[in-house]
Amino acid sequence: MLKRYLLAPGPTPVPPEVLMSMSMPIIHHRSPDFIPVLESAKEGLKWLYQTDNDVLILCSTGTGGMVGAVNNFFNPSEKVIVVNGGKFGERWTRICKSYGLDVTEIEVRWGYAVRPEQVEEALRGNPDIKGVFIQASETSTGVYHDIKTVAEVVGKYDDTLMVVDAISALVAHDLKTDEWGIDVMVGGSQKGVMLPPGLAFVSVSDKAWARAEKCSMPNFYFNFRAEREKLKNNQTNFTSPVTLIIGLNEVIGILRKEGLENAFHRHARLAHATREAVRATGLNLFAKESPSNSVTAIEAPAGIDGQLIYKTLRESFGVTAAGGQGDAKGKIFRIAHLGYTGIFDVITAVSAVEMTLKKLGHDVKLGSGVAVAEELLMGDKA
Amino acid sequence: MLKRYLLAPGPTPVPPEVLMSMSMPIIHHRSPDFIPVLESAKEGLKWLYQTDNDVLILCSTGTGGMVGAVNNFFNPSEKVIVVNGGKFGERWTRICKSYGLDVTEIEVRWGYAVRPEQVEEALRGNPDIKGVFIQASETSTGVYHDIKTVAEVVGKYDDTLMVVDAISALVAHDLKTDEWGIDVMVGGSQKGVMLPPGLAFVSVSDKAWARAEKCSMPNFYFNFRAEREKLKNNQTNFTSPVTLIIGLNEVIGILRKEGLENAFHRHARLAHATREAVRATGLNLFAKESPSNSVTAIEAPAGIDGQLIYKTLRESFGVTAAGGQGDAKGKIFRIAHLGYTGIFDVITAVSAVEMTLKKLGHDVKLGSGVAVAEELLMGDKA
Repeated sequence: MLKRYLLAPGPTPVPPEVLMSMSMPIIHHRSPDFIPVLESAKEGLKWLYQTDNDVLILCSTGTGGMVGAVNNFFNPSEKVIVVNGGKFGERWTRICKSYGLDVTEIEVRWGYAVRPEQVEEALRGNPDIKGVFIQASETSTGVYHDIKTVAEVVGKYDDTLMVVDAISALVAHDLKTDEWGIDVMVGGSQKGVMLPPGLAFVSVSDKAWARAEKCSMPNFYFNFRAEREKLKNNQTNFTSPVTLIIGLNEVIGILRKEGLENAFHRHARLAHATREAVRATGLNLFAKESPSNSVTAIEAPAGIDGQLIYKTLRESFGVTAAGGQGDAKGKIFRIAHLGYTGIFDVITAVSAVEMTLKKLGHDVKLGSGVAVAEELLMGDKA
Repeated sequence: MLKRYLLAPGPTPVPPEVLMSMSMPIIHHRSPDFIPVLESAKEGLKWLYQTDNDVLILCSTGTGGMVGAVNNFFNPSEKVIVVNGGKFGERWTRICKSYGLDVTEIEVRWGYAVRPEQVEEALRGNPDIKGVFIQASETSTGVYHDIKTVAEVVGKYDDTLMVVDAISALVAHDLKTDEWGIDVMVGGSQKGVMLPPGLAFVSVSDKAWARAEKCSMPNFYFNFRAEREKLKNNQTNFTSPVTLIIGLNEVIGILRKEGLENAFHRHARLAHATREAVRATGLNLFAKESPSNSVTAIEAPAGIDGQLIYKTLRESFGVTAAGGQGDAKGKIFRIAHLGYTGIFDVITAVSAVEMTLKKLGHDVKLGSGVAVAEELLMGDKA
């Protein structure tokens, strides 16, 4: 028996009490039983999103929410900017182009964060740019983009929407939706929200709703205006994924008990300890600046394939982390500290990395990373 | 404590062993752990669908599968026929129109089945009709359309696809996908398949795949060609709803043990007993012909609101059935015998109906329907 540990940037482990809540008998989504369930989820999501606006609940992966964020608020041939600093930045571009938008990319070297001045420059003199698309945490590189400052920049333009993919950042990073002026923010269930895959969340500002009135792309399944109407009566437009929404309420209860600030702090602390520990083993981080609190991307040492590290972590030590994506495949591996995680997940991850590297013939001092993680994590409360 | 019974036409109850299988720790959808899970689901769905073609697995409600069945195989302004005999027929029309198709409706009076000659007539002399959209079981009326004969008619036209919404019919009705020549058939998880909501299934014939090559509507999320490519490697295009797919394998195991023929027979038998029992209480069925094996729609007696029957069943007796939809709202109520159901679900339903009607002042002989159900269900094996 090889005991297994899931430390990938989504799906992430689901707390046992949440799994149990989702094992209760099915209730009907149009029956009065479900009204208070959805009402509670609706309120909980507003709290989680730090917004007074409704947060739509979709039955899809996070990508479905991204698609809806494009085809509800834009018309074909409208100009938009995409901040592309990794695989999910590329995805914004692909979605926008597939709906006929006129995309200008701000290409950001993988491992780096966009400089808000780049966005400012791209917008200046282009008042006809209708939206700026960006990731909060770019999962493929482990970089966090400075959403607060970019939103400030975008907020100066009355006709430009700030659209954030927060799928892997939600709960791990403090994202002040309303205060910062984020118009559309997409989340997903299977990351910081600690649920199985199957739900996307989307917050929508008044500015974005006003835009939606002028848009008419076909979007039968991801029809946000129809979802908003249904949400008023605590329903979803199509069959509600009842089990996941019951689980969502359980998660929100757990997070309310912890407190949002504490949840952000927990992620920041675990991420910091992971980074310092990894560095102490002599490895380099892939994120050269502004590292994400959700996932740490680590460069494979010279001569060792990043995918082999991923494979050895899994097969020899039972730790499911992640390899690299796109151009970074083979060059990096990634360890998440996202969702249902505590200090011993970091210890496990760092220890597994040390043993894996040693096993693969790399010169690493066993315990060197773990010692640093312990040092950083033993004080304060876990 | 009011013990609860779910007898609605979706979501339907989930067997305890399936709920338990979905409570196992999360596994990663891009890890080797998941490959055999998806491979097994893929094989199982072919068996369930009676097809040699791949059956795509989507993270959405059934409606998402319907949307994909439109925007993967048709181009704007192409002519199609929709058989509209209820709320879900209307949905085909709404989806097709939202994607700019030129829709001709065959309007079928609610409670009746389309006559295949009507389809023949609509197609004759119109070789440019690219598709015929139909429901197998029209959930809003409790009517089953004769898919076999309609598919025969459509099959005569080389350029016309037969597209079936089998969301509420799958497992309850024998639908021979390949043998009958169904080009695109949409299913969902939360009906006969006995899972929570969250998955759609779509089978695609070679004829339909050839058509897809010529189509270019934006369909980033429901991109069937991309799903087909991923499925070859036992993956889905976006994050796989891992828990539901694990549950799907459990369900397929249960159905394989029962045998497909036996599952169809079970549904037919329970549906027949429900109908005869309801009639014995003096009520009229809403389906005037070709009743569905998934759900029985029953006319509210004169002077009693159908929604009040629904409400009383729920509130006084703990039985969640369904009311009427659209124009039938208030005029009917509906009882499902779909998915994880046996003879005592029928007894419970009929008994609850008898008591509800009596309570609402209707002249009904208590036990009259139950006696007929017992008569029909005590012989043969349950």
